[in-house]
Formats: sequence, structure tokens, C-alpha cells
Amino acid sequence: MAITLRQSDADFEPRFAAFLLTKREVSADVEAVVRQIIARVRAEGDAALIDYTRTFDQADLKSLGIAVSKDEIARAYEGADAGTIEALEFARDRIRAYHERQRPKDDRYTDAAGVELGARWTAIEAVGLYVPGGTASYPSSVLMNAVPARVAGVERIAIAVPASGGAVPPLVLIAADLAGVSEIYRVGGAQAIAALAYGTETIKPVAKIVGPGNAYVAAAKRQVFGTVGIDMIAGPSEVLVVADGSNNPDWIAADLLAQAEHDVSAQSILITDDPTFGVAVEQAVERQLQSLSRGETAAASWRDFGAVILVPSIEAALPLVDRIAAEHVELAIDDAEGFLSRMRNAGAVFLGRHTPEAIGDYVGGSNHVLPTARSARFSSGLSVLDFVKRTSILKLGPEQLRLLAPAAIALAKAEGLDAHGRSVTIRLNM
Amino acid sequence: MAITLRQSDADFEPRFAAFLLTKREVSADVEAVVRQIIARVRAEGDAALIDYTRTFDQADLKSLGIAVSKDEIARAYEGADAGTIEALEFARDRIRAYHERQRPKDDRYTDAAGVELGARWTAIEAVGLYVPGGTASYPSSVLMNAVPARVAGVERIAIAVPASGGAVPPLVLIAADLAGVSEIYRVGGAQAIAALAYGTETIKPVAKIVGPGNAYVAAAKRQVFGTVGIDMIAGPSEVLVVADGSNNPDWIAADLLAQAEHDVSAQSILITDDPTFGVAVEQAVERQLQSLSRGETAAASWRDFGAVILVPSIEAALPLVDRIAAEHVELAIDDAEGFLSRMRNAGAVFLGRHTPEAIGDYVGGSNHVLPTARSARFSSGLSVLDFVKRTSILKLGPEQLRLLAPAAIALAKAEGLDAHGRSVTIRLNM
Repeated sequence: MAITLRQSDADFEPRFAAFLLTKREVSADVEAVVRQIIARVRAEGDAALIDYTRTFDQADLKSLGIAVSKDEIARAYEGADAGTIEALEFARDRIRAYHERQRPKDDRYTDAAGVELGARWTAIEAVGLYVPGGTASYPSSVLMNAVPARVAGVERIAIAVPASGGAVPPLVLIAADLAGVSEIYRVGGAQAIAALAYGTETIKPVAKIVGPGNAYVAAAKRQVFGTVGIDMIAGPSEVLVVADGSNNPDWIAADLLAQAEHDVSAQSILITDDPTFGVAVEQAVERQLQSLSRGETAAASWRDFGAVILVPSIEAALPLVDRIAAEHVELAIDDAEGFLSRMRNAGAVFLGRHTPEAIGDYVGGSNHVLPTARSARFSSGLSVLDFVKRTSILKLGPEQLRLLAPAAIALAKAEGLDAHGRSVTIRLNM
Repeated sequence: MAITLRQSDADFEPRFAAFLLTKREVSADVEAVVRQIIARVRAEGDAALIDYTRTFDQADLKSLGIAVSKDEIARAYEGADAGTIEALEFARDRIRAYHERQRPKDDRYTDAAGVELGARWTAIEAVGLYVPGGTASYPSSVLMNAVPARVAGVERIAIAVPASGGAVPPLVLIAADLAGVSEIYRVGGAQAIAALAYGTETIKPVAKIVGPGNAYVAAAKRQVFGTVGIDMIAGPSEVLVVADGSNNPDWIAADLLAQAEHDVSAQSILITDDPTFGVAVEQAVERQLQSLSRGETAAASWRDFGAVILVPSIEAALPLVDRIAAEHVELAIDDAEGFLSRMRNAGAVFLGRHTPEAIGDYVGGSNHVLPTARSARFSSGLSVLDFVKRTSILKLGPEQLRLLAPAAIALAKAEGLDAHGRSVTIRLNM
């Protein structure tokens, strides 16, 4: 049973504040181990990768090869269900279409003083994409990371994926191929991050590493940050459903469970203005839990982190929604648009009663890599912008320099930076 | 004397590769101390700030107050040079004009399937801006950080600045006021970062912290990251000047020294295709060093990290420029535009012979907070985008859900996520 919080209760504020601070993940202290692994990969290159992979993944990369071959990709297609391949293509095309609208535009202009200014966007040259192994090895995530990179114009995308016993999940290979990724390496963990950041004989270094991973991968990403760029460190997933009493409780229960089944640390929250509806959803959750293959996981998530928040009106939910700043927000209410226009913090919003969040996970087109753990207050989901960078441009002629010089010289003087001033004045005495 | 590297030398490549790896800053290990400071500020709030400030800044905040008053700002104006105030206003206006063009646009559209998609940008609610104390307390940096936040629509901007002996540099107060910042706190170091991240009785918490700082501040920013957003951790500044023999060596020497005077860890690099010109610049550097108030700093930087790289042609400089990926790149060559169009990595580019980098530090309009230490390969300078975040939007009706359902259900099945599939199928049986 999830907890229930009533906004009308006297102790709502402290209880809600405590709820916001709930830590859903204990971060393992793996710093030292990871530091060692990175140092060894830097020193020994491929040999270290081969050795770590033998130990951690029970695979012999000496015979298998570190890089996945074209033949293996071809074999993956042969063994795969045609409907699943089609679904991946359908998803890829929709993701591509959405992200193509995100390409930032260069800017170049001349202002009233005659100064030329601007900004120029260029793609990051090479990006590494980490794909977790085991049950967290989602082909949809390969698409969500690789397609925006491709749209951005990244030339090299290198995937690292642990291959337990040597085998890379075939759908990961297919998703990578469909996304246009040409380099795939069967290495995982901190050793993969080190190889991507510093390079080995087989793996050329990249400039940025993205993608989810376990505690070792996350720690490794933090440690190589600076040498390369990294994306956000993703926490467990969460959904916040704002629903009035006109919804089918079974639909909303299904949405809450779709989040809960990800992980025991996932979080599902319902905010409603209808207490009877809230109870009906809770009953539906219990019922549906009986027939889920990942029922145990979902049950633990719902029990430990699930919540039903009762508000006197949907409007009263607004400040709570902004404070929760959830990764996913479903607005199953009449005036979803109006509510959205007054909202501030959310990774992604799903409007109306026919937009289950799972659509956004796969085929909506928008990205499913989104800010978790309240970080939607200050950050955004993955986009083309994560794979490009901007260079600012400034160009003065002698006249413009004369116009701007006095202020620049005054400020250089005020800051005690003589040479700054001199680099301007020296160009005035012509 | 800076080192000289000749691209025509047989050992150029290993020497250049080693040059790229040169660490210019030893990062002090202050993690443990900072962790303690943060914990104490979280536990004791204002009392901890008052105590730390007594110890580190020799100031009694109990009598002075943690917040800077309106009176103090008024007094700062009274004591300031009118020309400097005007210069700050001139800079602010130009910075504002440049950054107003960076405001991202919302997107909302309906695709061929009738699915409504989009993205909505909102300002971060509250931002903390750290301003270093002492000689690194630059009013120009206050403008460069605060103006884009204001343009982005950030409602609360809170400045933290250490006040040695209780006094905040008056020009910092004036710059803050001109940029529209209303909250200024005289606290510095890790304790200031902790206060901004977690809040105290006097300082309300913010959602993101930006601004440069010493090793303690940098470590504190890393430690609070996740609870709040942070900007990049800036390293020492650097300039790369690409200049042919048609330049006045004195001008180029002044530009190299403008960078070198910042810090002993700053770096100035000249790439030229004219060895005689290279020698002339080196001689001019030595000459100009004699008459600089920060000559010792500049001399140390030039001696330890300065470099003159000789190339057979300006065109041959291109791959080196991209590998150096400098914070600032001056192109004092004939076809600066052509060179720029083929470049990939730089924080900011200054075109032509009349655009000294110092103009960009103050009054060009573009931002002077830029990626250092080769991070221009994967990141960008500060902009309005750092103060906003994006929410993606998805809206389906019953028909659109029917269209997208088969692919979503297929992928949910392939990934073994039953409840994902169910949240879609359950809406189809109406």
C-alpha cells in the first residue's frame, strides 16, 4: 500500500516536505574500485578490457573480439521477430522527426555600432553511448540516445554494452544498426567508460559519454568528467499522475504500475481531487499487481515509494506538481492544456486521458531520457542540444574598436588588469 | 620563455600530444573539509555561516547582517567613479542585447498521424551566483552571469560573495544592482554553496548555482550537484592566437599577455606560419612584461604554459586549433571567416586584427564564461539556455493511440515490461 497524504490535514506540509526528501536509492561507495579500474585501462588498454571482461562478464574477448562484427549484426536480424524490427523502425522514424526540430540555428548579425556578432553550432565529433546489460538492456534506450546524436551530426557514435557470456542482446544490435551506429564494443562497467574516455588500441576516445548505467558506470562517468563531457546521472524513474474522478481507475492504475515495474526504487504518485477515485485506483493497483510478470518489483516500488495525494481541487495540485518536479507528469483532467500553461517543472508532460506515459517511452517521438529526482527544476531531457556545442563570434573593425574601447579600458582598469587594457589601447594608436 | 613547437619537426606529434595533456592546475584535495562544512551549514543554518565567516573572512555577520542592505548598495554608488559605472551600464546593455537573441522558442505541432507534440521552455525559478572574493572579484563576471539569468526570466537571483573584513567590493554591488539582482549575501566558500543549495533561515534555497570559485567552492558545487544544478567547473583561462606575419607583433604580444596576467595557470598560445614574426612576438612579450602591474603573474604563466607553434601554412593550423579546443581563439589572419567556417572546437572566436579578446571580456556582448581545458570539444559558454529548462509535450486522442499502439505494445513485450503494454491495451478496449 502506498502512503496517502491529504492536503487538508494539518500536518500536510511537513509530511509533504519529508516526502519530497525521500531518498529512493542508496548510492554504493564504489569510488575507489572505479578509480583503480580507470587507471588500469589507461595503463594497459585492450589487455585490461579483456581481463576485466573475463572476470565480470565471463566472456573471452580474445577470441570473440572487442568489437562486434557486421556478421553478428546480420545474425541478430535473422533471429529477430519481424514485428519487433518494424516497431523499432517505426519508433526510430518518429524519434527522428521530433528531434529534427531541435537542431539549433546559427546566428550572425551586425549591431547598430557595426559590430559583427554571432554564434555557431557544431556537432560533437565523437560520442560514446553506454548501454546497460541484463534486463536493463533496452533497445528503445539505444534509439533514444543514438538518434538525437545522429540528428545532431555526430560523426562517430560508439556503443559499449556488456555481453554476459559474450552475447550482446540482439535487439540492442538491431536498434544500434537502425539508428546508424557503426561501432559497437562488448565491454561494460567502469572499464567501458574508461576506454571511451581515454581510448585503447581498439577503441578510439570520444568527447562525450551518454547513457544510463549501474553505480560503477555512474561513478566512472563522474570521474572521467572534464576529460570528456557526460550527460546527467539518471536516478530511478518516476511518474506523477494528476487525475480527476472522471477517469477509469483501471487506466490510471495501469499507468502507475507501468512506472513501478521498472525498478523497486521507481516511484508512482497519484494526485486527485476525488478521494473515492483515489481508493478505486488503489484497489485497481492491487488487482492488476496479481497478473504482472514483474509484479514483485512493481509491488515493492508501490509499497515503498508510491503515494496518493488528495487535494481539495485540481487547481490546488499545481504548486505540489511544481515542487515534485517529476520526470513524467500525466494530466488526465479536463483542462490539461490550461494546467500545463501554469506548470513550471516537469521532464515530460502527457496530456489528456489517452496519452499513457508508455507511449512516450517508445513511439511518441519525444525523448524518454528525462531528468529524475526533482532535477526537472533545473535540467531538461536529452535532446539534440546535448550533442552540439556553440562557439560565440565577435568581429570588430577599427571604427567599432574605437567605439567600444573606452568602456573596455575603464573596466580593465577597474579590475586591475593592465594587459587587458593595453591590448585595446595599443590598437588605437595607429 | 614559452616553449616553441615546429610542426615540421620529426617529433612534433608526440610533443604536441604531450602539450595537450599538460595539467595546469593541481586540484587540492579538499573533499573532506568541504563535506564537513556543508553538513554543518545544513544542520545549523545561519549560525554556521556566522561562525565560518568569523573564522575565514574576519567579519562579524551578527552585527553586519548576512544580507547586504539597500543602503550599502547606495553607498557603493556614491563612492564609485562615474566613468566606471557608465562602462558597466554600457557592458550590461550590450550583454543583454546579445543574450536576448538566445531565448529558445517553444514548439508545438501536430504530425501527420494527428499526434500533438511539442516542447515548452521555462525559466529556472531561483539561481545562486557565486562571486569570488579578493582580486578575482570581477564586476564584469557578475554581469556575465546575472544578465543571461535575468534575460531567461529567472525570478530570484541570489549572489554570494565573501566579504573580507565585512566589506563587499563596491563594484560587485553596483554590477549586481545594474543587472537587476536583488539578493546579495556576504558569505563565501563552501559555506556559501551549502547555504544556496540547502537554504538557511536568511537564505532561501535556489535550484541552480553558477559562477567561478576556488578549490573549496568547486568541490562544494560538485557535492551539492543533484540537489541543485551547477554550471561547468571552470579551469584557468586560455587564449590561442592564430596570426600570420602581417600582424603588428606588439598587438599580438599584448593579447597573449592579457590572458597570462589572469593567473599563473593561464595559458597563451601563438600559432603562426612566420617564424620571424614568432620571434618578434616573443621579444615584444618580454618587453611588455616589464611594464605590467601583474607582470610577475604574466611572466610565470608565459614561462610555464606559453607556447609558440610554427606551422608551414595557416591552413595547416586548422587541425591543431581543433585539437587544442581553446576557450578563446583569435584569428588575426586574412581569411578569418573562411578559417572559422572550417573550425570545429572553440569557446569563442575573435575575428580579424581589430578584435582583441579583452573586448569580449567586457563589452563585446557575448559571454566571457567559456569552456576551458579543451572542454570546448563537448561544451559551450554560458548562455540563456543555462537558465531555462525544457518540458516535452505529448498528446494523443483515441485515434492516435490506436495508430501508435501496435508498435508500443510490441516494444513493451520485447523489453519484458508487461505493465507498459497494459497501460496502452487497456485504453483500446472501449
